[in-house]
Amino acid sequence: MSEKTLVRNIGQLLTMDPDLCSGGNPSERLLGLVPSGAVVVDDGKVLYSGPESQLPATVTLGAETVDAQGQVVMPGLVECHTHLVFAGNRANEFQMRSLGIGYETIARQGGGILNTVKATREASADELFELGMLRLDRFLEFGVTTVEIKSGYGLNTETELKILEVIRRLGEEHELGVVPTFLGAHVVAPEYQYRREAYVDLVCEEMIPEVARRKLALFCDVFCEEGAFTVAQSRRILETGAAHGLLPKIHCEQLTHSGGCALGAQVKAMSADHLDFCTEADARSLSDSGTVATFLPGATFFIGKKRFPNGRMFKDAGARIALSTDFNPGSSHTQNLWLMGTMGSSYMGLTPAECLRAMTAGAASALGLQKEVGQLKPGMQGDLLILKSSDWQDILYLYGTNPVEQVV
Amino acid sequence: MSEKTLVRNIGQLLTMDPDLCSGGNPSERLLGLVPSGAVVVDDGKVLYSGPESQLPATVTLGAETVDAQGQVVMPGLVECHTHLVFAGNRANEFQMRSLGIGYETIARQGGGILNTVKATREASADELFELGMLRLDRFLEFGVTTVEIKSGYGLNTETELKILEVIRRLGEEHELGVVPTFLGAHVVAPEYQYRREAYVDLVCEEMIPEVARRKLALFCDVFCEEGAFTVAQSRRILETGAAHGLLPKIHCEQLTHSGGCALGAQVKAMSADHLDFCTEADARSLSDSGTVATFLPGATFFIGKKRFPNGRMFKDAGARIALSTDFNPGSSHTQNLWLMGTMGSSYMGLTPAECLRAMTAGAASALGLQKEVGQLKPGMQGDLLILKSSDWQDILYLYGTNPVEQVV
Repeated sequence: MSEKTLVRNIGQLLTMDPDLCSGGNPSERLLGLVPSGAVVVDDGKVLYSGPESQLPATVTLGAETVDAQGQVVMPGLVECHTHLVFAGNRANEFQMRSLGIGYETIARQGGGILNTVKATREASADELFELGMLRLDRFLEFGVTTVEIKSGYGLNTETELKILEVIRRLGEEHELGVVPTFLGAHVVAPEYQYRREAYVDLVCEEMIPEVARRKLALFCDVFCEEGAFTVAQSRRILETGAAHGLLPKIHCEQLTHSGGCALGAQVKAMSADHLDFCTEADARSLSDSGTVATFLPGATFFIGKKRFPNGRMFKDAGARIALSTDFNPGSSHTQNLWLMGTMGSSYMGLTPAECLRAMTAGAASALGLQKEVGQLKPGMQGDLLILKSSDWQDILYLYGTNPVEQVV
Repeated sequence: MSEKTLVRNIGQLLTMDPDLCSGGNPSERLLGLVPSGAVVVDDGKVLYSGPESQLPATVTLGAETVDAQGQVVMPGLVECHTHLVFAGNRANEFQMRSLGIGYETIARQGGGILNTVKATREASADELFELGMLRLDRFLEFGVTTVEIKSGYGLNTETELKILEVIRRLGEEHELGVVPTFLGAHVVAPEYQYRREAYVDLVCEEMIPEVARRKLALFCDVFCEEGAFTVAQSRRILETGAAHGLLPKIHCEQLTHSGGCALGAQVKAMSADHLDFCTEADARSLSDSGTVATFLPGATFFIGKKRFPNGRMFKDAGARIALSTDFNPGSSHTQNLWLMGTMGSSYMGLTPAECLRAMTAGAASALGLQKEVGQLKPGMQGDLLILKSSDWQDILYLYGTNPVEQVV
């Protein structure tokens, strides 16, 4: 039996589809804003999204009605870059950084990602699953309805597969939509510290084929950065992944300019993520290749850096953009994606409307799901948020809080 | 009839009184951490605060018991710098800034504070009161139990008095503790744009005497900054206030180095607030005068500046420090004081323990209430928070969220 819901009395309906917005200023068009809107969801899909006055009576037949009481309604957020499955805690590193010890220094001394790897290897799949469920609950509270999750705290075949199996189980048992990414090439495993190429061999010759065989991931990601993987190693990993049907994604230009962004464009990556140290040529290259530029300002903020990605430059170059928390225990321990939008406007030259789009339709593109989530239009997934405000302009303006009243 | 409450099974009790902490590392001493603690509150005052094992049976007689379930318990937060009573909304300026139009430019063009002044003059006292009550509710949700509120969106005698009367009424009708501050010298009123000294005359000769006569404020504050008031004008205003029994506070060195911090030290201000552009000599001067250095990193963040106050420098100079949201509609539209603590550690060189203290005991000092709130020790106010975590190190580490489970 199908379950039909009508959400009516919507003060401002943000469809994120510019074609559904007649008139309005540029921000309103970007948001696909419909005043006095209504949405009908049937069996999880949007059946109608538009002015309440034009709602056909047949469409609402048998629907349960939710009154949005004049508030803003928008699509569920899409969180396109997380490292959500991990054990342990790195609050101690947050304290060390407050005393001036840098993120890179902590990593060089064997802390950082390797700390989490140790704890995650020791944790059982059930423990990781329980932790993951709680974290997905918290994302849902913040209005996130689709979330990408990367492996990458295993760094050996056994644990990488364990994490990906946990991610699969989370997707099956939690109501959120879960998209799995293989990130065996997060950093070089400690056992391979002096045989870095041998670790790349392991990723390419053992992990990727097995991940693909078990259909455990959609994407293959790599951290292309000084101290992690070189451009040449990253290319080999991404090309091997692609040969096995895993679409490429890349972490690049976070702490230095390494050339990873250009590589991402060359291999036509689905997204290139971080981008704090990019040039205009990088921005143009992503625009040309159709790669989504995914910004993670929380990772800049939380490790105390002041060079944020230049969102405006990418937007002006014509690239598609996304925003994400980068939720992880080391460099960005937050699940409040809205706050990333405020940072996008404070520090990255993006308007609030551009940021809201980057957290929904833009982030959906970064996952190849632009036809399924991130917009409220007929045929797409009917995940929607009723907010506490009646004006979309308030959403990112009242920062550090959770604007979600209800997730429908 | 007195109402007695016992909060027991506290995993970590943060008393904020170093004398109550036996052993522990420097952070734990700073927080006055007691493991396996209990607190008894009788008639609103702390009767016992310490190890549960040493709780005298007589003290708990007739008490209602709350089980903290092993979580962290700490004093209610003290919010020592807000502009909470205002009408209108400046989301449009947040959008303008995202396009690169600076805070100072917007102010020079007649936007900024003057926009809020216009809306606040037009609003009735009842409207301001209703808005204020909702905002106090939100602070309480975030665990704030004492809040300072400034006038300063009136800029004429009638409206400044109206705002202060609203603040008085908020204090009477809301369960939060409210501390009123007169900030007639926020900026020069628009009517006095070309007669700036005449506005200072109005503040000193009409407003201050009337505010004092009606006992509407404890403090007299001034915004000492290019475009607002000079050091000489600020001195006259603060000295006039002091002569009428209003203790001095000063906004200074936010956007430029104007010399306001040194003035604050000279007049022995209760606190000097902002301090983004301070020198080491400034820090030493506040330490010498006993003036609390109050940091408002949200105002740096929200207007997209990258020079945060150097908290470490003040701490090392021996100054007492406080953290606050600066909640206002223009430069810091947030009520999440916890997020300021994360910024204190990310960008200001303060440890998480120093930040937590700055939001409680430190902020109480900035209001002269260090013997009443901000610590959990016998005789002090029994406002306390049960948090969602069992380890104090998690509080500022999981950022952008609300760690409060329950306010007792």
